[in-house]
Amino acid sequence: MINKIGREIPDEILKQYGKEGYQGPNYRDNVRYKKAAPMVRGVVDPKQDKMVSNIREALEKCKIQDGMVLSFHHHFRDGDYVVNMVMAEVAAMGIRDITICASSLGAAHDPIAEYIEQGIVTGIQSSGVRGKIGEAISRGKLKTPAIIRSHGGRVRAIEEGDVHIDIAFIGAPTSDAYGNARGVGGKSDCGVLSYSMVDAQYADNVVVITDCLVPFPNFPASISMTNVDYVCVVDEIGNPDKIISNAIRMTKDVRELMMAKYCTRLIADSPYFQDGFSFQTGAGGASLAVNTMLRPIMEEKNIHMGFSIGGITQPICEMLKDGLVRNIVDAQCFDRASIESIKNDARHFEISTSEYANPMNKGTFANKLDFVILGALEVDIDYNVNVVTGSDGIVRGAPGGHPDIAAGSKCSIIIAPLVRGRIPTICDRVVTAVTPGETVDIIVTDYGIAINPRRTDLIEAYKNTHLPFCTIEELRDMAYEIVGTPDEIPFKDRVVGIIENRDGTILDVVRELDEEC
Amino acid sequence: MINKIGREIPDEILKQYGKEGYQGPNYRDNVRYKKAAPMVRGVVDPKQDKMVSNIREALEKCKIQDGMVLSFHHHFRDGDYVVNMVMAEVAAMGIRDITICASSLGAAHDPIAEYIEQGIVTGIQSSGVRGKIGEAISRGKLKTPAIIRSHGGRVRAIEEGDVHIDIAFIGAPTSDAYGNARGVGGKSDCGVLSYSMVDAQYADNVVVITDCLVPFPNFPASISMTNVDYVCVVDEIGNPDKIISNAIRMTKDVRELMMAKYCTRLIADSPYFQDGFSFQTGAGGASLAVNTMLRPIMEEKNIHMGFSIGGITQPICEMLKDGLVRNIVDAQCFDRASIESIKNDARHFEISTSEYANPMNKGTFANKLDFVILGALEVDIDYNVNVVTGSDGIVRGAPGGHPDIAAGSKCSIIIAPLVRGRIPTICDRVVTAVTPGETVDIIVTDYGIAINPRRTDLIEAYKNTHLPFCTIEELRDMAYEIVGTPDEIPFKDRVVGIIENRDGTILDVVRELDEEC
Repeated sequence: MINKIGREIPDEILKQYGKEGYQGPNYRDNVRYKKAAPMVRGVVDPKQDKMVSNIREALEKCKIQDGMVLSFHHHFRDGDYVVNMVMAEVAAMGIRDITICASSLGAAHDPIAEYIEQGIVTGIQSSGVRGKIGEAISRGKLKTPAIIRSHGGRVRAIEEGDVHIDIAFIGAPTSDAYGNARGVGGKSDCGVLSYSMVDAQYADNVVVITDCLVPFPNFPASISMTNVDYVCVVDEIGNPDKIISNAIRMTKDVRELMMAKYCTRLIADSPYFQDGFSFQTGAGGASLAVNTMLRPIMEEKNIHMGFSIGGITQPICEMLKDGLVRNIVDAQCFDRASIESIKNDARHFEISTSEYANPMNKGTFANKLDFVILGALEVDIDYNVNVVTGSDGIVRGAPGGHPDIAAGSKCSIIIAPLVRGRIPTICDRVVTAVTPGETVDIIVTDYGIAINPRRTDLIEAYKNTHLPFCTIEELRDMAYEIVGTPDEIPFKDRVVGIIENRDGTILDVVRELDEEC
Repeated sequence: MINKIGREIPDEILKQYGKEGYQGPNYRDNVRYKKAAPMVRGVVDPKQDKMVSNIREALEKCKIQDGMVLSFHHHFRDGDYVVNMVMAEVAAMGIRDITICASSLGAAHDPIAEYIEQGIVTGIQSSGVRGKIGEAISRGKLKTPAIIRSHGGRVRAIEEGDVHIDIAFIGAPTSDAYGNARGVGGKSDCGVLSYSMVDAQYADNVVVITDCLVPFPNFPASISMTNVDYVCVVDEIGNPDKIISNAIRMTKDVRELMMAKYCTRLIADSPYFQDGFSFQTGAGGASLAVNTMLRPIMEEKNIHMGFSIGGITQPICEMLKDGLVRNIVDAQCFDRASIESIKNDARHFEISTSEYANPMNKGTFANKLDFVILGALEVDIDYNVNVVTGSDGIVRGAPGGHPDIAAGSKCSIIIAPLVRGRIPTICDRVVTAVTPGETVDIIVTDYGIAINPRRTDLIEAYKNTHLPFCTIEELRDMAYEIVGTPDEIPFKDRVVGIIENRDGTILDVVRELDEEC
């Protein structure tokens, strides 16, 4: 079938997964469904001990079997040791046909590509699929199509029962012996454990892996003992230097600063820029610069941010400290300053990824967002955004919260340079649609700004704003003029990846690369 | 059948409810079961508004029907207006055959007795069944047997699906318009919303009722917007003077002080009195006095409490402030001082009742308790405790956390006067068994102290402790000598109440009073 954004989704894929094609952002609004539920084991006897000596013992006690679904979180990002540590033991036990359901996978997980080749891992469900894992998927090595979900979409899939986790592994900077685990403390401090909260609640078996055991009760707990079966202490759960950067990059790039300036003006001149407004931005150079540029305008107009959300960085923490931001709600800490902030500032809160963006619960922070600033690998003339496949057709990115907050927010702004090297960012048709165009409001490039024509209210609001507005087609034409019309990427028919919309419908598919063309 | 503590449970009751008789405290240890799950409605569209004008509108939107299960919490205790307010509207709508599933019901809810008579309420599931509701139950007015559960047992029943809540009503001192609700703030401050957390997670429909609407996000939220369908603002959710007492009673009764002194000695001389020990006590005179008496011993021996739990009162909060208690984990605030403490002290934490004591999750605070001090209406020579039926056979009490922490703790101590008026506290056989004797370790009375013979370790530990130890039979004999052997209470055959053990097996039944005898 051809879905609502004109993507062809093979009928056999829809049938096999019991899914529909994408039908619009609010298609499933008010739909009633029964939540999923785990099989759990009651710990009635107070004498029960949850400590296990090593990962092997945890796997044995959880009765690991061929074909199981194992889950992981990515708060340790490029410094994560947990996925590889567990999977090495799974491989050593001769277990096969494992599906990894991770909140994201990154460069730290290249060894998994080898397990894919060997049939030890035959399914991947993740936001990020980068590095060698991405290459293995695009080259057709994974037995089943990778399922790529946004952060909110992953929680939805688990809470709706689309995926059932047999064993969840939760790397925790600190835990007590009864499984109360926190994102702070110890030597592998990552601030929050937001991504893993849904795993703890919906997995049949839950194993906390820590390198810092602390006295009971380790409170306030990100992960509650009430959901944890076993606790395993290892030497190191991650590389602290790669878990968190000590400082984020402040851009001096004039092109980035110019786009940030445009973006700041768009926010300040919009009808949503009022006391109590809410805001999410990423850790990219231009995004971060917007924080800095917005600040004097907020001070001048005596406007305070109600809440800031998302991947949290130093500039927002400083605005919290200075009273310009009233609350930070945090599902991921990006730097040292944000970890210190969540430890010390009572208005900086850890939230679950369900609270962040699961579209099928009863309401999220994403729904309450005014402005979001996002990036893009490609944007097409229908405003569809690709943040997953590179210009070579290989999966190398992650939707993260992109589709969630684009859909939830009142004004979603994409910042991206018009061209990157010889690649046009604005194009006729994105290789892979990850965020549907009807949820994308404004595209800011270094050559001009396009407002989605369906946002007549925003076009009206900016009629007296002097910025280089143009149409998205004009942006595309400029891009193609500079770098030429991009060649088609040669793909085979076989589907190797499924881009699931946050509500569980299918937005697009990724096909196997045809490297012989 | 006759269950493990010798109580006759009619087979038709077991069959009707699909239950077993009680088989011992750890009978269901390691049992695997599938958790229950609600039918929920996804709030995808950010434009959805959760505010309703009044309770009628909330009931209509939740599609209230005959036969539904409505749930409530009792954090507002004798000051609660929510139960009556909702039930008056239910009655006005002509709805019948409602089951009320409350964490407890008290004197504030006398009007419910009238709805029982009228067939508007035909089922009660609660910890407390006092006042006119208790009388109605004991006199056979309720259509189905009342199911009486401990606090942990209620969470278990909901999480295992023994009871499915159609609509949960959560009275909240503060809420934002999207349903993030807290136990603190506003004019009806109750400190925590622990009892209602399970309702929010497992009910199909969740309505927050507040008298203080605050800006979004009302964080940290006790109840998350992700679980809330509707928010209703009313004039008053309770009477602040009755919600919380400004000061708890400090006893000057010499009998209570003597029992407190015995109890303090028993704790101090036990093997569990070590740095990091944990402790729960109630708000009764003798219990509170133990806090005060324990303090100088802790100071002298440089022993700190790891955590204190339960209904929280001023003496424990002061010990937290002074560094003698490391953490308070709080499922119920009993006085003004404890509310101020949870607002201001970072080591005073709100917990869910599942974390407190649900025996069928993966581990609770109850399991980690060293000492608990509890009361009793009656204790029999098998150490079974009755805290539900009065000496007239009418239900007028509540198990609360009694059976939970007796089972979980290493040393459970019951404090009770040997006789009350003309009623012996220690007797041959309690009218109703609520806490099984094998989980009760020590009985402290003003006439002597009995240690459960199964606790040979404790008997050994106290061999050099000079306290008036005796057997439970000796205590009974003394009691009967003072007030005479109690008369049998005349009951009919009909079962009007079921005492469910915390693990879901049936511990005892309550029968209809035979008032013609």
